[in-house]
Amino acid sequence: MLNNIRVVLSHTTHPGNIGAAARAMKTMGLAHLYLINPQRFPDRQAEAMAAGADDVLQNAVICSSLDEALHGAVLVAGMSARVRDISQEVFAPRVAMSTIMEQAAAHPVALLFGTEMSGLTNDEMARCQFMVCIPANPEYSSLNLAAAVQLMGYELRLAAVKGAVEPGKRAAPELVPAPAEQVERYFKHLEDTLTEIGFLRDKQSTKLMYKLRRLYARARLEQEEVNILRGILTLTTQYHTKLKQKSE
Amino acid sequence: MLNNIRVVLSHTTHPGNIGAAARAMKTMGLAHLYLINPQRFPDRQAEAMAAGADDVLQNAVICSSLDEALHGAVLVAGMSARVRDISQEVFAPRVAMSTIMEQAAAHPVALLFGTEMSGLTNDEMARCQFMVCIPANPEYSSLNLAAAVQLMGYELRLAAVKGAVEPGKRAAPELVPAPAEQVERYFKHLEDTLTEIGFLRDKQSTKLMYKLRRLYARARLEQEEVNILRGILTLTTQYHTKLKQKSE
Repeated sequence: MLNNIRVVLSHTTHPGNIGAAARAMKTMGLAHLYLINPQRFPDRQAEAMAAGADDVLQNAVICSSLDEALHGAVLVAGMSARVRDISQEVFAPRVAMSTIMEQAAAHPVALLFGTEMSGLTNDEMARCQFMVCIPANPEYSSLNLAAAVQLMGYELRLAAVKGAVEPGKRAAPELVPAPAEQVERYFKHLEDTLTEIGFLRDKQSTKLMYKLRRLYARARLEQEEVNILRGILTLTTQYHTKLKQKSE
Repeated sequence: MLNNIRVVLSHTTHPGNIGAAARAMKTMGLAHLYLINPQRFPDRQAEAMAAGADDVLQNAVICSSLDEALHGAVLVAGMSARVRDISQEVFAPRVAMSTIMEQAAAHPVALLFGTEMSGLTNDEMARCQFMVCIPANPEYSSLNLAAAVQLMGYELRLAAVKGAVEPGKRAAPELVPAPAEQVERYFKHLEDTLTEIGFLRDKQSTKLMYKLRRLYARARLEQEEVNILRGILTLTTQYHTKLKQKSE
């Protein structure tokens, strides 16, 4: 299961943190590191901090976009240092583990970490199905990036080991969420259609799209559902186009 | 309870690790750092790595002996990177927490960390009531010192702060699902609209509606979302009517 987990670090400023994160990952049995536009990489400081986890660094996938880093992931969990004024659901690591491990049993899952200074951007958060917030001192919640990776890796390892020990309690029909790029295509389709029918048209639009994203993020759309929803959108547009042509 | 916990670092080699440990401590609400003969301290690297936890560094107690560092502690738990051939009992952090917190409710408790390279000496281990071993990748169990402090601090915080583990709700905007009748009105509206645009038209319809219901049921729609979704439907219908009139 741990092999289906990828750690995605977005726009990391300090190469030392990348190395330390790689080390933290390896100690917990995680191997897949994705870097979105790191400020400096490869770098000697990263190698120094990685210690014996140089293989994790060497196999790191450097991406130029979020899409690239999330390609194929059926679940994206974003890390948040504090509970901000965001629309997503927020869970403590231990609570998030059941959902994460359930998916990671069969599909790629991404843990998305923002920059050291400011965390995830709104656009990055919008791509997450939910946020994970590490319980911390409210007066000083600034965990080092690699420390956050370490804690998440630790919880993942405990969850993975426990899952192997305890017979799984299979609840409800199993949900197989669609990969990130499929969900993203739906949102694009939705936005286009809502613009065409005149629902999105001003500054409110972005906010509305965030709200719609939040709704569907909670549901974690399956591929068939994406197809149904896009089918509705396609028909809406086709119908419009037909009517438009008639009326012209 | 966290106020009764002291983190004791013995003969630490790299001052950066002392700083990073201080930061890790503060993020988890730990304040008492004891240093037994640190190789270099105070040090600029320690300060740099401590970030906003400079107060923990400044209040650090420098000791010249183990006795001094453990003075007053009713319980000493030693950290071990791996289960060695030692006589002490070894617990995973989560298992050790109950004993540690029980004592820390009223008395000073020490967590003893050895050097980066070789961990605790035999003499140091002999002073511990039990050892704590962080579950790690058996092929690479070399956690950074500050990372180990971070993990222990995290477990201590979860154990000490009620509600820190459970959240799910320790979270941002609480989800308030819309009442059933509102959701039902949405489904009726959806069905009507989908019929109008020609998406629902045969025996498949019931099945499709069932699938759409399942999707939105998972999301547990809030009232605002019901309003947004119904707004989209209303606009779709209005738009269609306009186009129809044009085309007639």
